Amino acid sequence: MSSTNAGSTWTSDRILSDRILMGPGPCNPYPEAVQALGRPMLGHLDPEFISLLDETNERLRTVFGTSNRLTFPVSGTGSAGMEAAIVNFVGPGDTVVVGVNGVFGGRMVDVVQRTGATAIAVAHEWGQPVDVERMLAAHPSPTMFAMVHAETSTGAQSDVAALGAAKGDALLLVDCVTSLGGVELEIDAWGVDIAYSGTQKCLGVAPGLAPLTVSDRAIERLKPTPQSWYLDLNMIAAYVTGDGARAYHHTAPISMIMSLHAGLGVVLDEGLDAVRARHQAAGDAVKDGMRELGFDLFAAEGHRLAPLSSISIPEGRLPAGVTEADVRSRLLAEYGVEIGGGLGPVAGKVWRIGTMGHTARQRNVTTLLAALADIIA
Amino acid sequence: MSSTNAGSTWTSDRILSDRILMGPGPCNPYPEAVQALGRPMLGHLDPEFISLLDETNERLRTVFGTSNRLTFPVSGTGSAGMEAAIVNFVGPGDTVVVGVNGVFGGRMVDVVQRTGATAIAVAHEWGQPVDVERMLAAHPSPTMFAMVHAETSTGAQSDVAALGAAKGDALLLVDCVTSLGGVELEIDAWGVDIAYSGTQKCLGVAPGLAPLTVSDRAIERLKPTPQSWYLDLNMIAAYVTGDGARAYHHTAPISMIMSLHAGLGVVLDEGLDAVRARHQAAGDAVKDGMRELGFDLFAAEGHRLAPLSSISIPEGRLPAGVTEADVRSRLLAEYGVEIGGGLGPVAGKVWRIGTMGHTARQRNVTTLLAALADIIA
Repeated sequence: MSSTNAGSTWTSDRILSDRILMGPGPCNPYPEAVQALGRPMLGHLDPEFISLLDETNERLRTVFGTSNRLTFPVSGTGSAGMEAAIVNFVGPGDTVVVGVNGVFGGRMVDVVQRTGATAIAVAHEWGQPVDVERMLAAHPSPTMFAMVHAETSTGAQSDVAALGAAKGDALLLVDCVTSLGGVELEIDAWGVDIAYSGTQKCLGVAPGLAPLTVSDRAIERLKPTPQSWYLDLNMIAAYVTGDGARAYHHTAPISMIMSLHAGLGVVLDEGLDAVRARHQAAGDAVKDGMRELGFDLFAAEGHRLAPLSSISIPEGRLPAGVTEADVRSRLLAEYGVEIGGGLGPVAGKVWRIGTMGHTARQRNVTTLLAALADIIA
Repeated sequence: MSSTNAGSTWTSDRILSDRILMGPGPCNPYPEAVQALGRPMLGHLDPEFISLLDETNERLRTVFGTSNRLTFPVSGTGSAGMEAAIVNFVGPGDTVVVGVNGVFGGRMVDVVQRTGATAIAVAHEWGQPVDVERMLAAHPSPTMFAMVHAETSTGAQSDVAALGAAKGDALLLVDCVTSLGGVELEIDAWGVDIAYSGTQKCLGVAPGLAPLTVSDRAIERLKPTPQSWYLDLNMIAAYVTGDGARAYHHTAPISMIMSLHAGLGVVLDEGLDAVRARHQAAGDAVKDGMRELGFDLFAAEGHRLAPLSSISIPEGRLPAGVTEADVRSRLLAEYGVEIGGGLGPVAGKVWRIGTMGHTARQRNVTTLLAALADIIA
């Protein structure tokens, strides 16, 4: 066979659907970010690529609200960012107080425990924000406090600045996966030492990278030999922030970084405030529309995340014999619209509707609400 | 500012060069693999994506020469594949015999030690293949033997089948980063239990994924809670190989997997034997041409890797006052051709010239040799 398109294996004559992605991520990426994926490949030590990486990192500093020198995209998805943010800083003998108000707080506990450190889980009811007083009361002098800014599993947003002001000598680690680029975030002003995110949420880029930022205060406490070689920040920093020659560590995911560079450019061209306002407006439109359709909001009032709306499905709201999973399947099959189901204790009871990145536009909300109204009529 | 192209931040009016990538990787990706990066985004739980992932994994089985059920691309670059291949199988109390004949064998020792296992490094002269007898003599009953099939730092290829036949009860781990798709590889027939690779070498895809394959025999020995959550194969297998419903672990790098799917399709359309022959012919042309230009071959005769040619630079071969780094800089700046320098003990003494993936074509070799002849005339 030839490598042409006709009758070839490389496409399998496979035509992929064009979805409107309104689940908890990935979102639809910005067209400019997609276009950048196809730019000519460069080597990871090419001066042109190093310059593009430097500019990408500078753009990340802007959206994070930080001047942290060590700010770059980890070569993995958001969970790799979480792991990098933990294994470089804690190990046996350390204590981490973790706010658990959903899946991702729970995941942090798991990652902490695998380092040999002690995790003190401060459990919250799902849908509630993290209670800073309870975090502070959990241990008098932990190595680290860890919390999720925007819980992707519940749609609850928590107050980071309050913990930043009261953290004392501890490091403060914050999961910003579903907040970076979509809601207000001020890493430096809020006293955050380590934060990570993902590219496929409010930044409007494909999944595959985990933006990470680390304060100088945290860098001083880096473990000299963390358990992960791939995520060892001592070595990665020599490539990412080295002056002049950059020491090779691992081959960077070039195309994804080119795409992140472009996606961040779109965000900064529109303006960070304008992008956040667009996320807020789209999220408000989802919440208002779903209430009009007879659904409830799951996350606690006053703590509802704009880019991800968690929706409770009241008993009897769906037609008899129709499950929430049936509705999601019909939305996907008939309208090409993806929304997310609930995880863990709220599986089958909650929908998660994302309005993130390029998807955070009224047109998509209108489409979703109209399609949903048809399906559950 | 608007988010249009004119005067915007997203491009920075940045025009990237169009390189011929003849270093140790990344190569130039196949046009079809680049095109697939821009396919419409799908969710990681979308049935269409799961089907595409399944087909990608089936294609990986073909190029690996395996029927291993657990065969998939790890969500990170090649070194993440190395870490996944080690931390899931060894820990305190285990012993790993590692063949070290270049940088990547040394990296395996580092990763093994970070798990708490004992690494017995069997050191070889750089450029030599791994000596199976010395590996077997290093320990009577190790948990694992680990070796590099094709050392990217030296261009030496080693005999894997001999160790596979003699491994006894130990697991056999093989680094196939620069061999998968480019030279003969038979995971099952050679008795390999665990193997990983990268997408940016002979597969002709962008960097960002690490194809991994694990035998059933190795799966039986998986650590129940490996130190890495992100690379925990127990949990990842539930997503990658689950029957029916797939359990969410982390968000897959969708665009990169679409690209790998397409790149593997190109390889299979051309035919695996034909692709390997093309790599052999291009590598032979590099070696012949460089000898004609007065250079020597670094890797031991009879063990020279086709896709990556390691070239010794004899004293006095370059014009007076010109360093090997000067030559590489001029190749890049004047001809847009990238080749690699030496690492570690052979830095400044060796060039590494890759002919991998889409780059493995006579036209590129001709261009390189002519450009080099001009520069060092």
